Amino acid sequence: MRILLINPNTSVSITDRLMASASTATSADTELVPVTAHRGVPYIASRIEAAIASNVVMELLAEHSTGIDGAIIAAFGDPGLGAARELMDYPVVGLAETGMLTACMVGKRFSIVSFARALAPWYRETVEWHQLVDRLASIRMPDTDFSNINDVQTEMQTTLVALAQSAVTEDQADVIVFGGAPLSGLVKEVLNDIPVPVIDCAAAAVMQLETLIRLKLRRPIAGTFRRPPAKPSTGLPPELARRIGHQDN
Amino acid sequence: MRILLINPNTSVSITDRLMASASTATSADTELVPVTAHRGVPYIASRIEAAIASNVVMELLAEHSTGIDGAIIAAFGDPGLGAARELMDYPVVGLAETGMLTACMVGKRFSIVSFARALAPWYRETVEWHQLVDRLASIRMPDTDFSNINDVQTEMQTTLVALAQSAVTEDQADVIVFGGAPLSGLVKEVLNDIPVPVIDCAAAAVMQLETLIRLKLRRPIAGTFRRPPAKPSTGLPPELARRIGHQDN
Amino acid sequence: MRILLINPNTSVSITDRLMASASTATSADTELVPVTAHRGVPYIASRIEAAIASNVVMELLAEHSTGIDGAIIAAFGDPGLGAARELMDYPVVGLAETGMLTACMVGKRFSIVSFARALAPWYRETVEWHQLVDRLASIRMPDTDFSNINDVQTEMQTTLVALAQSAVTEDQADVIVFGGAPLSGLVKEVLNDIPVPVIDCAAAAVMQLETLIRLKLRRPIAGTFRRPPAKPSTGLPPELARRIGHQDN
Amino acid sequence: MRILLINPNTSVSITDRLMASASTATSADTELVPVTAHRGVPYIASRIEAAIASNVVMELLAEHSTGIDGAIIAAFGDPGLGAARELMDYPVVGLAETGMLTACMVGKRFSIVSFARALAPWYRETVEWHQLVDRLASIRMPDTDFSNINDVQTEMQTTLVALAQSAVTEDQADVIVFGGAPLSGLVKEVLNDIPVPVIDCAAAAVMQLETLIRLKLRRPIAGTFRRPPAKPSTGLPPELARRIGHQDN
Amino acid sequence: MRILLINPNTSVSITDRLMASASTATSADTELVPVTAHRGVPYIASRIEAAIASNVVMELLAEHSTGIDGAIIAAFGDPGLGAARELMDYPVVGLAETGMLTACMVGKRFSIVSFARALAPWYRETVEWHQLVDRLASIRMPDTDFSNINDVQTEMQTTLVALAQSAVTEDQADVIVFGGAPLSGLVKEVLNDIPVPVIDCAAAAVMQLETLIRLKLRRPIAGTFRRPPAKPSTGLPPELARRIGHQDN
Amino acid sequence: MRILLINPNTSVSITDRLMASASTATSADTELVPVTAHRGVPYIASRIEAAIASNVVMELLAEHSTGIDGAIIAAFGDPGLGAARELMDYPVVGLAETGMLTACMVGKRFSIVSFARALAPWYRETVEWHQLVDRLASIRMPDTDFSNINDVQTEMQTTLVALAQSAVTEDQADVIVFGGAPLSGLVKEVLNDIPVPVIDCAAAAVMQLETLIRLKLRRPIAGTFRRPPAKPSTGLPPELARRIGHQDN
Repeated sequence: MRILLINPNTSVSITDRLMASASTATSADTELVPVTAHRGVPYIASRIEAAIASNVVMELLAEHSTGIDGAIIAAFGDPGLGAARELMDYPVVGLAETGMLTACMVGKRFSIVSFARALAPWYRETVEWHQLVDRLASIRMPDTDFSNINDVQTEMQTTLVALAQSAVTEDQADVIVFGGAPLSGLVKEVLNDIPVPVIDCAAAAVMQLETLIRLKLRRPIAGTFRRPPAKPSTGLPPELARRIGHQDN
Repeated sequence: MRILLINPNTSVSITDRLMASASTATSADTELVPVTAHRGVPYIASRIEAAIASNVVMELLAEHSTGIDGAIIAAFGDPGLGAARELMDYPVVGLAETGMLTACMVGKRFSIVSFARALAPWYRETVEWHQLVDRLASIRMPDTDFSNINDVQTEMQTTLVALAQSAVTEDQADVIVFGGAPLSGLVKEVLNDIPVPVIDCAAAAVMQLETLIRLKLRRPIAGTFRRPPAKPSTGLPPELARRIGHQDN
Repeated sequence: MRILLINPNTSVSITDRLMASASTATSADTELVPVTAHRGVPYIASRIEAAIASNVVMELLAEHSTGIDGAIIAAFGDPGLGAARELMDYPVVGLAETGMLTACMVGKRFSIVSFARALAPWYRETVEWHQLVDRLASIRMPDTDFSNINDVQTEMQTTLVALAQSAVTEDQADVIVFGGAPLSGLVKEVLNDIPVPVIDCAAAAVMQLETLIRLKLRRPIAGTFRRPPAKPSTGLPPELARRIGHQDN
Repeated sequence: MRILLINPNTSVSITDRLMASASTATSADTELVPVTAHRGVPYIASRIEAAIASNVVMELLAEHSTGIDGAIIAAFGDPGLGAARELMDYPVVGLAETGMLTACMVGKRFSIVSFARALAPWYRETVEWHQLVDRLASIRMPDTDFSNINDVQTEMQTTLVALAQSAVTEDQADVIVFGGAPLSGLVKEVLNDIPVPVIDCAAAAVMQLETLIRLKLRRPIAGTFRRPPAKPSTGLPPELARRIGHQDN
Repeated sequence: MRILLINPNTSVSITDRLMASASTATSADTELVPVTAHRGVPYIASRIEAAIASNVVMELLAEHSTGIDGAIIAAFGDPGLGAARELMDYPVVGLAETGMLTACMVGKRFSIVSFARALAPWYRETVEWHQLVDRLASIRMPDTDFSNINDVQTEMQTTLVALAQSAVTEDQADVIVFGGAPLSGLVKEVLNDIPVPVIDCAAAAVMQLETLIRLKLRRPIAGTFRRPPAKPSTGLPPELARRIGHQDN
Repeated sequence: MRILLINPNTSVSITDRLMASASTATSADTELVPVTAHRGVPYIASRIEAAIASNVVMELLAEHSTGIDGAIIAAFGDPGLGAARELMDYPVVGLAETGMLTACMVGKRFSIVSFARALAPWYRETVEWHQLVDRLASIRMPDTDFSNINDVQTEMQTTLVALAQSAVTEDQADVIVFGGAPLSGLVKEVLNDIPVPVIDCAAAAVMQLETLIRLKLRRPIAGTFRRPPAKPSTGLPPELARRIGHQDN
């Protein structure tokens, strides 16, 4: 199967890191097709940036879906996830969603640990959108800033481990979800320093999407994610305009 | 004071209707400055279209805010509302938000009545985002489609009244919120046919925004809507890039 | 328009303070008509005192409503608010309600800061009655007592600012609501000491009530606040007995 | 032990009916001391009337507590219950509270069945105050009015049984709570017509209060129901003024 | 009346302690019939042990119910309570359930205080099963282990009092529930050291069960606890097999 | 990898059906090891039967885990799931859990459709245990009984399709979860008759468990599912006694 891995950030280095982590999780017959946002910011960390990214994700899905069996929106806040499910005929999953749902099979309550305080409100809204607040122990972020998004794993490793330990001790987390594409692959470095399981979202996303594809679920023609009626539009890239106008199939 | 009224739909006819209704609600010293989306669909009715609109709203805010004291995002699902609050120094409100919060002072539970079944999932998520589900009696939509967005008030008047009556009788609604910019101004036509108060969101939005402006609230430098740190960006319109990069003030 | 401002406390000094703050918020054509409780305690701070005040509010509404367009119950716990909506044909709002709903347009979660620990349980029940618990960050009160209700603003200013700062830092409040009629007008003194917006409930109440009056909403004849059927009664003041007995119109 | 049974309605016939039902539930050594409201309405059915009753309950408690070991507020909405707990040193329970909590030991979800549609909003708020909404299956009321409060059991028996049956069949109620003092004693008439257990609130209230008294619980000096500090007051009956002013012990 | 007191732990010393506390709470005409688990662990403190105990409780109920009017499952997590209600024709209550519901008549929010950290997850699930989380202030457990289950009251008294005090001061508990059969009878030792009421679950359970028996409630033939249809079975003790197969009546 | 598939029902025919469905979902290198309950009832449909099954699951896990990498509790109510996670070092999942969490990636709200009305209360409690009630649209069961558990798919196919269609139309379900081991494999027969995706729980369980095993998560030594301390026991099968007593590793 061919899986579209959409990085809604404009940093190709984050795409590379996501691919490295996701590749370890694919089945033998799965090909990952990476695509990086052409518009936006190097690393999404606010609602403003997510609002832009949601639109960009629509454009990337419309443009790159030929021969694709499923897609991953590879930013932790899952920008545009609900919209993507309306737009496409194949399964789409988000990094936050698959990380959290996988965590739910391992503990009663999970904590999200990430690297930038500005992310907390957006991440909180993501948990609320998925209606998993009852399963959330806490969202833990450092008070200090990172200096370079590409080195955030190395630079912040000690801090992130300490946050995870606090989540377990003080917030009663049973499992940790590392939030944010730049943390992909970190789990294996810190496995023994954290007393509960830790979820790598990129790996979880690939495996969960493969599961959905293998289940051969039908496209809904009712319910919240059925395809909306055809619409005319103004000013959109041609592939997206055709998809919204039902002129593509 | 000068209020920016952003119509995230591309239909100028909806802008006109919003202005007609909003104008009846302004104070003597208030000027409404309308602006219509340059990209997107004539009438937003799905998450896909809201995802595009959220981005467009960011662009319109960045471009049209000189001399503005506050802004209304004039589509019922409040696309981009949280992001707009991060982005701008002045108050921003949404049509759904102000309609619902005004309704909360009139009844314990409100019902949203609108004109297109496709809107229901997006409206439901809007109520959830505002965490007002406990105050929601129901969302009622017709099963049939409208033929023309500009005539939807006339064409659907009987249907909308019947839906409102059912919301009161069957769902125990204490107050009705007419959802969707195209219904602006309808309230006065049907006042006597519905046994509970009905809220016109465009009128409520103008008055609520005036209240926020008059309270002279400070711009937060902490909390969920404080301004995010400056960011470089790629491919954005120059005004929005400057605003996100903190190069505008 | 003429607005009845009911102070359910027996202290005329609190009525004066409320009037000073509310007057700054009225439109040019609005007249505020103050009335002070004739029975009860100087400052309501417990459920006992609120139970008494709820009855007193009914009596004051029945007695003072000639020529009135709307009423404010000017104590933070909103004593008798639901009952007042059943009783009167015009809009009635409460200090807590309007403060909290206004805060909801400024932040995701608000904290209530007030001056006496005894108030916390009653305030908590007020938030629950309005079903706004999901939007509540915390209720913060000092551990120490005030010496004189008339000087509480001056005496407690430093403490209240510190509580508000803690609400932001520790409880993630995005906006502060100063709770209690004796704090009316304090906001402008401390604006620069608190990093998020602060709501003055008396000002918010006046503006919100004006909004409801201007919307010319119909009196409900269905739903939770429709007028109850006529009832005979025993031992009530004549105006209230007539109003309950439907002998007044 | 001596139990004060407060009927917040002014109808002595309701007091008699309550006493008849409660008397069957008392232990051998328990004496019931009935007292009927001197102010208010014959039968409380709205928030207005409950607001008045809450005040009256304070007065009756202050006046009639000599030699009393505990009190029952014998109206289903529990008017003044929280205030009564602050006011008195002995246990106080409400009809709704004890009926619902007893029901919780018999089924997962209970329905409240009563005889007048106007009662529903007040009853709903009572369930919310006790935070038992998750255990509530429904509140079922007839659409038609009763003609005489004293005959409501006889007149409405068939209707009430049908409502209870619908609550079981359509709302998945596991147990029925008959709501309202005038229904005291009805349970034994309809036992075989309803397929699940039915709770008589007056009987439950007596037994639950006896349990609290026998447990010899201490008066709280912390928490939500600790006694508020002494207060001066204006215009209150002397016993209540003394109790609020801490001049009675 | 004859009440079956089932100790799902295998320790006879715990049965003795339960009997000592429960005996002080019975009415004159009540006989307590104790029975101790024949299979399992000396003291249940995990979900594993509760899973075993749930089965054992079914066996004990089936075997010992001749001439019995009601049963208490005398372990705080109420193992098998829902199943027991399906199985038996008489009322069955649990130690946690009756402790918590009794506490609800004394405070708005209760804290559970117990003696072993391992109990917390199981106790939390018990509160959730009863849907009383909104009434829960906290669950407080010591960090240190006890040395002997029989001496846990003496050994841990100081610690338990300190935990209860913290629950009041830091978690805003209005009432304390001592969790766990081995704490039966401790309340009277510490009454003056804790500023709010404390519930002894064994005493509460006896009185609550007597209340249910006296109410002469009918056996439900609908709803969640109606008796399941007859079933064949394999490998069960003969009394339980007969009860499940409806061959016993 | 080797996966233990535990059928907590005593019917070997259900084990066979589970294996047929699960086998279609395994990876090439996965071996399924089936085991059938030796004690209990042919098909679990009540809390009584689940209470027995929870104990049996503990015994089967302790006895059959040599060389096993993970286990599935293959009954929809997930009997003993939390206990199993405490007991074993490898991942354990339940049929209901994996079906529901998989459904959450396909729709906002799922409905559970099954074949016997008696199952509804137990299934409801399962959804509550997993704290997924916000994602639940409804539980739909037929009113009529099936005649033979082995033929329930064929016998009930038309009925189950109609229930699923009603769940979509009336309850706004976005995805259907077929509940109950006897329905394994039915999805492919009815794919085109239901307008939304349908989840086969046995297939989902295998794939989700494989995902957990591949993630190589560490055994928690903190949090809700850490291994409880060693305990002595009485009357348990030797393998279970050794596992509980930590004498097995």
